[in-house]
Amino acid sequence: MSHVTVHEHKVQYYETDQMAIAHHSNYIRWFEEARIKLFDELGIGYKESEEKGIISPVVSVEANYKNMSRFYDDLLIKVWIVDYTGVRATLKYEVTDKKTGELRCTGKSKHCFINPEGRVISIKKVSPEGHKILEEACVKEEG
Amino acid sequence: MSHVTVHEHKVQYYETDQMAIAHHSNYIRWFEEARIKLFDELGIGYKESEEKGIISPVVSVEANYKNMSRFYDDLLIKVWIVDYTGVRATLKYEVTDKKTGELRCTGKSKHCFINPEGRVISIKKVSPEGHKILEEACVKEEG
Amino acid sequence: MSHVTVHEHKVQYYETDQMAIAHHSNYIRWFEEARIKLFDELGIGYKESEEKGIISPVVSVEANYKNMSRFYDDLLIKVWIVDYTGVRATLKYEVTDKKTGELRCTGKSKHCFINPEGRVISIKKVSPEGHKILEEACVKEEG
Amino acid sequence: MSHVTVHEHKVQYYETDQMAIAHHSNYIRWFEEARIKLFDELGIGYKESEEKGIISPVVSVEANYKNMSRFYDDLLIKVWIVDYTGVRATLKYEVTDKKTGELRCTGKSKHCFINPEGRVISIKKVSPEGHKILEEACVKEEG
Repeated sequence: MSHVTVHEHKVQYYETDQMAIAHHSNYIRWFEEARIKLFDELGIGYKESEEKGIISPVVSVEANYKNMSRFYDDLLIKVWIVDYTGVRATLKYEVTDKKTGELRCTGKSKHCFINPEGRVISIKKVSPEGHKILEEACVKEEG
Repeated sequence: MSHVTVHEHKVQYYETDQMAIAHHSNYIRWFEEARIKLFDELGIGYKESEEKGIISPVVSVEANYKNMSRFYDDLLIKVWIVDYTGVRATLKYEVTDKKTGELRCTGKSKHCFINPEGRVISIKKVSPEGHKILEEACVKEEG
Repeated sequence: MSHVTVHEHKVQYYETDQMAIAHHSNYIRWFEEARIKLFDELGIGYKESEEKGIISPVVSVEANYKNMSRFYDDLLIKVWIVDYTGVRATLKYEVTDKKTGELRCTGKSKHCFINPEGRVISIKKVSPEGHKILEEACVKEEG
Repeated sequence: MSHVTVHEHKVQYYETDQMAIAHHSNYIRWFEEARIKLFDELGIGYKESEEKGIISPVVSVEANYKNMSRFYDDLLIKVWIVDYTGVRATLKYEVTDKKTGELRCTGKSKHCFINPEGRVISIKKVSPEGHKILEEACVKEEG
């Protein structure tokens, strides 16, 4: 079944900048918070994966800022897998304000999988169960 | 004359993560370091612009990670304006290792200009000199 | 009635360093998270206070690290006011692991109150209700 | 000969908060920047030490904020060893504004030395040369 994770984050004081908004670099970190929760919910958490020797670095990331977030806003970060090939995965993100529903940011990240020596690995080969989970969690995009 | 800024940054311990590499979110911050230096070199620094009431938020940002950076690497962050319309600007980035020249990351960011009330402004209108500087600094991409 | 706040924080990947532990500077940020929650619970939140023109900068901070925290640990940050004079407040902190109860860090911070112009103000004078709340929230130390 | 390191840091936009000052947690990171430079200048850099299996965690840290730092201030962070026992070291810090000389912050940190397994080690035993360097670098305090 396709899987969507919703992660909640309250904007902290140390995340604001002198524009009195959350600094744009934080969204990249909140994407990571949500992504890690997604994999955790799928039963293939980062902690366990790294212990098994499967590391998942970021190949690319993008963020499109729609509206500004401010101190102590409660944000909802939605994340889902839009593409998974066995060796690569693409995730999408949507950040909204919990109270007003206002869209704050959309994003996308691409990931590969490597072993502790830095060599690219195929999840399909090293973890058939993990592979099945990722395939099923994938949310096919319309269109 | 088209203008390219090269900014140097040494990877700090607090910028590493448990993969023993610089956390990917830091590149977004280093892009900002370089971008601010670029505007400073052009004589239209952030500090002075914000004092004049011209704020330049990030509309979108993307980073493409090519190779990992490690603690105490000396990085060169190259930044230049690729497009400027009077109300919007697009910048590109290239991060390389100073010693080896290895490409670490490329990136792009888009910016608009707002006043302290958050209203979008045209640099062409509010600062003709700034406008001229930005137009001239632009590095036309080969097509 | 004396007031103790317990704030929960999950250690994020971007908070780890290459020692594979949470970087020590994050505790200073977690102290702030807990402190802001404390003032919020007391009904004198940062957001509202800053809107009223009362800013509360950090005069000093210290942290004593007892044990290391790791990625995805659920931490409990306990915070309480140990001293309040009308113009200054001292807070203490205790960070423990939620699951094991292991003590990770203790801390202390001192604060004054200033107006937006940066002038030191007396809460006793500018906000008698706030003053009463802070006096009552204070947890007297034994000994 | 006793050794004092002076490290320069320009306050970045992402280091500011909505008080329009450098967030206080950054000083803890700048202390680290300066400390790492100190050990590097002494020929016993973090990178090399960690490769030899000598890790130097922070046991405690404190910062006393004297004046606020603002965006694009050039700061000088002075650091020196005030005490070294063979198994522990205490360092002091002084942050000033480069242009005006204004004192911004003073600080202190204590460190021990551990091996990759987390066991406390004596530098005197595992690295007699390192021990000699640290002993000589120590700046005795008057008084």
